Amino acid sequence: MSDLFFERVAFIGIGHIGSSLARLIRREKLAGKIIVCDRSSDARAKALELGIADEVTDDAAIAVTDADLVVIATPLSQYQAIGTAIAPALKKGAIVTDVGSVKELVVREFLPLLPEGVHLVPGHPVAGTENSGPESGFAEVFKNRWCILTPVPLGNEEALEKIAAIWRSGEMQVEMMDAAHHDRVLAITSHVPHLIAYTIVGTATDLEETLKSEVIKFSASGFRDFTRIAASDPVMWRDIFLNNREAVLEVLQRLNEDLTAMQRAIRWGEGDKLQDRFAKTRAIRRSIVEAKQA
Amino acid sequence: MSDLFFERVAFIGIGHIGSSLARLIRREKLAGKIIVCDRSSDARAKALELGIADEVTDDAAIAVTDADLVVIATPLSQYQAIGTAIAPALKKGAIVTDVGSVKELVVREFLPLLPEGVHLVPGHPVAGTENSGPESGFAEVFKNRWCILTPVPLGNEEALEKIAAIWRSGEMQVEMMDAAHHDRVLAITSHVPHLIAYTIVGTATDLEETLKSEVIKFSASGFRDFTRIAASDPVMWRDIFLNNREAVLEVLQRLNEDLTAMQRAIRWGEGDKLQDRFAKTRAIRRSIVEAKQA
Repeated sequence: MSDLFFERVAFIGIGHIGSSLARLIRREKLAGKIIVCDRSSDARAKALELGIADEVTDDAAIAVTDADLVVIATPLSQYQAIGTAIAPALKKGAIVTDVGSVKELVVREFLPLLPEGVHLVPGHPVAGTENSGPESGFAEVFKNRWCILTPVPLGNEEALEKIAAIWRSGEMQVEMMDAAHHDRVLAITSHVPHLIAYTIVGTATDLEETLKSEVIKFSASGFRDFTRIAASDPVMWRDIFLNNREAVLEVLQRLNEDLTAMQRAIRWGEGDKLQDRFAKTRAIRRSIVEAKQA
Repeated sequence: MSDLFFERVAFIGIGHIGSSLARLIRREKLAGKIIVCDRSSDARAKALELGIADEVTDDAAIAVTDADLVVIATPLSQYQAIGTAIAPALKKGAIVTDVGSVKELVVREFLPLLPEGVHLVPGHPVAGTENSGPESGFAEVFKNRWCILTPVPLGNEEALEKIAAIWRSGEMQVEMMDAAHHDRVLAITSHVPHLIAYTIVGTATDLEETLKSEVIKFSASGFRDFTRIAASDPVMWRDIFLNNREAVLEVLQRLNEDLTAMQRAIRWGEGDKLQDRFAKTRAIRRSIVEAKQA
């Protein structure tokens, strides 16, 4: 796509995903200039040092002035303040996108803040590691993963295509989806698994010290896998749960019922029931391996 | 340890861990002959083909005849039948060890079956992948992991030392522990995490087909990590839960309380509570990375 070029790209927030996307944009030469806005002076300094920002600022309105493309890559709780701050400064025809893990709120709370003539394309690259901060990003993090776009009603087709093309340049597959559906799917695949991981690791942190040191020693037996995802950014995850409450609580309810059934099967020694259940879950793993998402 | 050599080693069960240990024993030249007993003719053929068995049989008594070292590496539900079958055939002075994930039952149900003059050393190498079968084993799986031995009351010191030395030859660190304590620690680090993984993946298998295919597509967002451990052997895990019931149910109870508190914090929008909790779990991850178990 030879005409995929933005004279001026503004990033609001330059954490793990923001910096990964900035690196991708650099690698693919999709931008003339990259301006980074972040509240953290460390992050701003890092972005300059890493060469992913040409200019930095702590003022979102300044960052987006004259920008052709604006990428919101902050925790969800900042969206409203950012929308309010940037709205007067956005130029007509600018494309605004985001990388947040909850999408219904973008339409509900962020879209109404934007002026007419600005094109919003809510997005969610389903990728990343448990690490945080601009130094943890890398362009290849998106490779072979999926990016979900949740187009707004009556949105601009060309803007949508351009955002899709950016992600495709990072070798992502792009899927369009209704925002509410996105939030339900991600509650299952991502939000509830993270909550469970945080919970199980949290239960272990409450143990007396001797036992805790043993849990660390012998963590390779399963616990370790939970600690990896429970090391993700606390603020980002707080915001995800607060903003996808209904879907998360619904999935938790189902999970609770299933966990109670497992508990009961263990208590009453129902081996067949356990074995049946365990055998079924292997099929899902195989599908994931086949889908090259393992 | 130059005198660490067994003329004849018998493996009862040659799955992932059994075959990994057999490969280690081969690599370190610790055995004259390895005899493998397995109920599965496929596994027996594979063991010969892989060169980890010199002889194979489906009769445990034949396998252990004249053996200096007997390794039980089957699911826990077979221990009683194996103990009964091999007891009359064990030679005086033979060392019997196992690799099972629950240890109290070994003392309670297996030890009483063995004749006097035979030395039991219950063991648990805390290592392995989610794969099953003799072809999935490899000697290096033990490297830098911990092996827990749970010595029986008034057990033979020399036998204990020899078993420890075998595991150390695979670069494991060896820790001695009371069997009941082992079962409590492993309930936290391994058994409950596996049960949760099985449950969460199970909840997803019950979804309608469209949603299920999306869960697979977008599994990289967290769900994937659970499917890996939920792909472990169903019979092995059924037996673990049935045989470590008390400890597993106790940990599940604590986890349930913590999960309910998380659920409540989400429902009532208590962001500070969530963030505090999430921030604490990062420390545990750091400890695991520092302990080189990540």
